[in-house]
Amino acid sequence: MDSELNLHIVGLGLIGGSIARGLSDTKIVVSGWDRDSERLQLALKNEIIESAYEPGDLPEEVDGLLLALPVPSMPQVLKEVASGGNQPGFVTDVGSTKEWICSRAAEILPDSVEFVGAHPMAGSEKQGLEASDPLLFENAICVLTPSSGRCDKLNEVRQIWEQLGAHIMELSPAQHDRVAAHISHLPHVGAAALIHAVGGVEDYEKDALPLAAGGFRDTTRIASSDPALWRDILETNREKVLEALAEFEGRIEKVKRLIEEEDWPEVSAWLSQAAKIRSLIPEKAKGLVGTLYELRIQAPDSPGILAEITGILGEEEVNICDIEVLRVREGEKGTIRLAFRRQTEQAKARELLQDRATGVKII
Amino acid sequence: MDSELNLHIVGLGLIGGSIARGLSDTKIVVSGWDRDSERLQLALKNEIIESAYEPGDLPEEVDGLLLALPVPSMPQVLKEVASGGNQPGFVTDVGSTKEWICSRAAEILPDSVEFVGAHPMAGSEKQGLEASDPLLFENAICVLTPSSGRCDKLNEVRQIWEQLGAHIMELSPAQHDRVAAHISHLPHVGAAALIHAVGGVEDYEKDALPLAAGGFRDTTRIASSDPALWRDILETNREKVLEALAEFEGRIEKVKRLIEEEDWPEVSAWLSQAAKIRSLIPEKAKGLVGTLYELRIQAPDSPGILAEITGILGEEEVNICDIEVLRVREGEKGTIRLAFRRQTEQAKARELLQDRATGVKII
Repeated sequence: MDSELNLHIVGLGLIGGSIARGLSDTKIVVSGWDRDSERLQLALKNEIIESAYEPGDLPEEVDGLLLALPVPSMPQVLKEVASGGNQPGFVTDVGSTKEWICSRAAEILPDSVEFVGAHPMAGSEKQGLEASDPLLFENAICVLTPSSGRCDKLNEVRQIWEQLGAHIMELSPAQHDRVAAHISHLPHVGAAALIHAVGGVEDYEKDALPLAAGGFRDTTRIASSDPALWRDILETNREKVLEALAEFEGRIEKVKRLIEEEDWPEVSAWLSQAAKIRSLIPEKAKGLVGTLYELRIQAPDSPGILAEITGILGEEEVNICDIEVLRVREGEKGTIRLAFRRQTEQAKARELLQDRATGVKII
Repeated sequence: MDSELNLHIVGLGLIGGSIARGLSDTKIVVSGWDRDSERLQLALKNEIIESAYEPGDLPEEVDGLLLALPVPSMPQVLKEVASGGNQPGFVTDVGSTKEWICSRAAEILPDSVEFVGAHPMAGSEKQGLEASDPLLFENAICVLTPSSGRCDKLNEVRQIWEQLGAHIMELSPAQHDRVAAHISHLPHVGAAALIHAVGGVEDYEKDALPLAAGGFRDTTRIASSDPALWRDILETNREKVLEALAEFEGRIEKVKRLIEEEDWPEVSAWLSQAAKIRSLIPEKAKGLVGTLYELRIQAPDSPGILAEITGILGEEEVNICDIEVLRVREGEKGTIRLAFRRQTEQAKARELLQDRATGVKII
């Protein structure tokens, strides 16, 4: 990036705040706005943003606006921008659904303002500016959905996400929403329906809770995320979600019929095909942290072993970014997974542990 | 347990082998059988079992028989036992479904032989005698489903699982199967249906794979388990699985209608209720390891910090049974989760870290 880019972020919660903080020390100059004046003051005080303007009162130098708000609140801000004196060259966003806001932006914004949809796939269980993290988007995937026929400003938006360390993928708004409906929105509704199918709180308290471990816990984990966000997603991707639900119902109907007809060879084939497809999905390190370089080691389960391993690496300034005990039973050997951010650290750790750690085997 | 119990295990794979190994050094004397003669010889050679007999040719001293086989193969073994010269006082099993085998056992076994169904909820991604683990059932839940009206031998079966360190829960075969259908079998079918709803391999390879992270990976994880085992489960719990599928379809139908009608307040309420119920399920440590005593600490992300923490605890012989880096970004503070098997270790660790670790905060 040769010249400065002036970006104005509307909404300084977890996502907006993390973007602002991630762009400090880059050539992108960040101003911002939040209707919560206390939060806005905090952002100014902590130098997370350089200045504050209302969306309808932008100074001339703002090149682009980024909406980090719930999707249903975005059109109102677009209207304020459209009726303002100065308009930015582009508007982008971070919403989980894309067709709804892209088509509203096309209606609301003047032709001189290009809308480039974006959906960064990162988040945190925590909310608010206080929880913001400049590295939240490092190695996360960010889908960009440029408006058809226009891409004058696409490069500016790409630069924002590249600076934040995200991997960029381009899809049309409709493609994004179709894939997201199947990969994200349908599983969410399915998880909630699984919970409801068991019954109410009293059914869980009776028999189900002690047994609701392992598979059930994994399968329903996403059902505990913010209901307000998910309501917005279902509302703003209604059509595609209904399509995905209909396809899902068709699959459930099919396997139900096979079980009713006791067609066990076909039931087997159906389960095998699902297992085969599932195996295509890489088991990455946690969440959306992105690629980590791993070492798995077998070590005796003794009180000092973790200290030995971490001590050897710490002495040589090799930073362990993740450590996990995969399987350990008292008195037996255990497997420990170590992860590093860089391949060079992984190689150095391998060498150090082979040379210096006793009773440790790298697998 | 005052007197010796002679237990004969039929099927020496992961589960049968783990039970046999877990009972060594107890008052339970284990003999066994496997139709794979190589595996049987291995079990004898490694002293996993003390002697080997065919199920139809048991010696007089065998008190009980434990079937560690796929559920559909169990009736054949029951028939061999029923037509044998000596019969055990009880037969038990480890199958994932209970009514099917309990009712077959009632038909096949003579009145003198009591059948006590059992379903230990533990497993491993690995299979076979080689992967067996004497501590596989430690802290796992084992559901016992004694036949109605009979419980002369229930105590013997309880003793087996108590020796293995399992937590015992009693349910009727029908209760077990109804809960398992909702908590385990339905989520499995649902996960496979979610995978199929996206499409075939080519649909994943096109757009979906890079986006199939996080929620989708969690929600569909169980779909990668052994299709043959799951076919057996669906076959031997057919009726209850069909009931659970019908209830699930009802819930999907309901939310679909709410979305179609754009009744967003009701959609919100439905999602909130699911999130509320989901929050009842404890986020236990991995899998079925059971209750662990946790400490969460905030620490600076420096190469030496893990070494410091594990060193302090290792010196004082406090055994960390699990360690996990929950969230760490370079240059920022991270959260580390430590888990211990005993409450006393947790208390000692808290004290030691408060006194000696620098820059560490217990949260």
